[in-house]
Amino acid sequence: MSIPSQPESPVEGFYAVIPAGGAGTRLWPVSRSGSPKFLHDLTGSGRTLLQATVDRLRPLAGPSGVVLVTGEHHVAAARTQVPELADDAVLAEPSPRDSMAAVGLAAAVLEHRHGDVVIGSFAADQVLSGQAAFEQAVREGVAAARAGYVVTIGIAASRPSTAFGYVRSGVSLGVEGAPTALHARGFTEKPDAETARGYLASGEYRWNAGMFIARTSVLLGHLAEQRPELHDGLRVIAAAWDTDDREKVVADVWPHLERIAIDHAVAEPVAALGGVAVVPGTFGWDDVGDFNSLAALLPSVDDAGSKVLGDAGDVVRIDSAGSVVVPASGRLVTVLGLDDVVVVDTPDALLVTTRARAQQVKAVVDVVRARGLDELL
Amino acid sequence: MSIPSQPESPVEGFYAVIPAGGAGTRLWPVSRSGSPKFLHDLTGSGRTLLQATVDRLRPLAGPSGVVLVTGEHHVAAARTQVPELADDAVLAEPSPRDSMAAVGLAAAVLEHRHGDVVIGSFAADQVLSGQAAFEQAVREGVAAARAGYVVTIGIAASRPSTAFGYVRSGVSLGVEGAPTALHARGFTEKPDAETARGYLASGEYRWNAGMFIARTSVLLGHLAEQRPELHDGLRVIAAAWDTDDREKVVADVWPHLERIAIDHAVAEPVAALGGVAVVPGTFGWDDVGDFNSLAALLPSVDDAGSKVLGDAGDVVRIDSAGSVVVPASGRLVTVLGLDDVVVVDTPDALLVTTRARAQQVKAVVDVVRARGLDELL
Repeated sequence: MSIPSQPESPVEGFYAVIPAGGAGTRLWPVSRSGSPKFLHDLTGSGRTLLQATVDRLRPLAGPSGVVLVTGEHHVAAARTQVPELADDAVLAEPSPRDSMAAVGLAAAVLEHRHGDVVIGSFAADQVLSGQAAFEQAVREGVAAARAGYVVTIGIAASRPSTAFGYVRSGVSLGVEGAPTALHARGFTEKPDAETARGYLASGEYRWNAGMFIARTSVLLGHLAEQRPELHDGLRVIAAAWDTDDREKVVADVWPHLERIAIDHAVAEPVAALGGVAVVPGTFGWDDVGDFNSLAALLPSVDDAGSKVLGDAGDVVRIDSAGSVVVPASGRLVTVLGLDDVVVVDTPDALLVTTRARAQQVKAVVDVVRARGLDELL
Repeated sequence: MSIPSQPESPVEGFYAVIPAGGAGTRLWPVSRSGSPKFLHDLTGSGRTLLQATVDRLRPLAGPSGVVLVTGEHHVAAARTQVPELADDAVLAEPSPRDSMAAVGLAAAVLEHRHGDVVIGSFAADQVLSGQAAFEQAVREGVAAARAGYVVTIGIAASRPSTAFGYVRSGVSLGVEGAPTALHARGFTEKPDAETARGYLASGEYRWNAGMFIARTSVLLGHLAEQRPELHDGLRVIAAAWDTDDREKVVADVWPHLERIAIDHAVAEPVAALGGVAVVPGTFGWDDVGDFNSLAALLPSVDDAGSKVLGDAGDVVRIDSAGSVVVPASGRLVTVLGLDDVVVVDTPDALLVTTRARAQQVKAVVDVVRARGLDELL
């Protein structure tokens, strides 16, 4: 099967899976366990991260080809935000079991419903720019997946980030319909700064955005080899999913599934076996992991590089270059004489820190938890 | 008349006047025009600045010898805070006319009621420590005032402050009952840093806390010479104050009174004529002009010199030495990685700045005013 000649038309037999999990702890107090990152509009676009993710996948997977996997606590909010998803397109997890269980569940359910199709997994809490380039990468990825590869999209690294994992590429894949796809030589964990600079200089490393595309039979086949118990459990659940037995089977099996990321369960071992391909993505990408990366996505509201997520009319800033303010309580936020400060104002909790410390907001959350202030988490 | 031998007994014929005005703009958003600085507990003592001022003056002036002069908008709040003041001990100003009109009104009303008594003027928004030393200074001041001087209490300067005016002292006054009193050679405006260092080194300069003690006849006599129209206006108002004509006369005369500080109207010109004495005060004093000076008055809540005005349980601080937090909204305030930061959290407005910038908070208030957000001022 070749790439469709009309970019507007969905890719036949392709399903987009959106695992929507993760607390977004470093974006506290905007992101909470009850209202995590993907339910928020973090770019000021008017669409939440989840809505934007669905928006960008619907042209590729078609109106009925987008499937959401999320915690059962978030199903109601997610349905409100993306009412266009059919009832059976939202898969509720009774408890978090990491990304392999989430994506594997979707793969098994979709294969049970539709046979051996191609799925692509795209996290609900990422920000992309460049829809055409994204679609082109996915289309190439689908082509490579049909040839039997587990495909990842490798993001062109724009800086030596220590916050992301990397995928290392090798020679051209040589698959029709995937002219830019390369063999993947392996994945790396988040590197230290010196290693990251080396990655950037080599030109062989791209950010691993956790976007995986594969035939369900290929993905589940690898899973059966690498993690047979997890595979078998997911197959049992999938067989019962669209029956009256779902509730009982899920209650019996789900809690015992192994918690493991898809990277560790499948991508890394299969890459070592030569079964992973990487399609270079030339679109803009960020995982909006903290308030500093959020700032990079927001337009400046003044010549001093100030950023506001919310109503700039709620902010007064004097001599505060590069500051990031999230006025989310309706109160007036005033900042005097602090460069690169981060002020996040919500109705019940306030965070004041610096862009340089943005990665360490988790430490604040840890203290809040230790104090027993669970209603703020 | 000599100093009473029992320090506990009030000074006969002495009235304490408390001018309670001033917006405390540099303490925004705690201090507001509708709820200014003197109505707040800024030291965590459980008493507002006004209450603490009355508390410290009642032993000197007796239960019926404390008179409050404040804007009519603040009369209700003030009466609630200091219900022990008699009805006729609260003088309401229809509009702010600066300190000469406020103190002069009290002087004229008290002289009309009681004849030529000694009054002392003590602003409602200062913080003192060392009650015995304060009482001793006032008692000496009253003795010097009875001898015909306008007396100020000069505060021992503990640092070369550029935020206060100074009074320069000369030779001993030689008045019985005022053994430490000195002739005052003159007053200065707030000096620059180099000048302030010179003042401190000389030993001749003390902070002018705006505490003035004088016989009403002396004070009003000087005012009649220096500012005859203002004097005459105050006399007309005072004559009508305790009659049915008060409202009409005040409405006619008050709006036309000159706006001038008592320092400029009387203290400075009379000092040049040799008529001012200074009693060195050895008590602790601060005018709590901004959040940095407020911080100096608060106990540290941890080894990092952190200060909290409010419930320390509402604050989480990590790697933020010397920070000052006012959690006044009930929300959790969290600070990560900012030394010497000032965070003032109120239900409708938030201020984030540094201790070094504390004097410049007025610039924030100016912007808030320019935006027309008068409800926040």
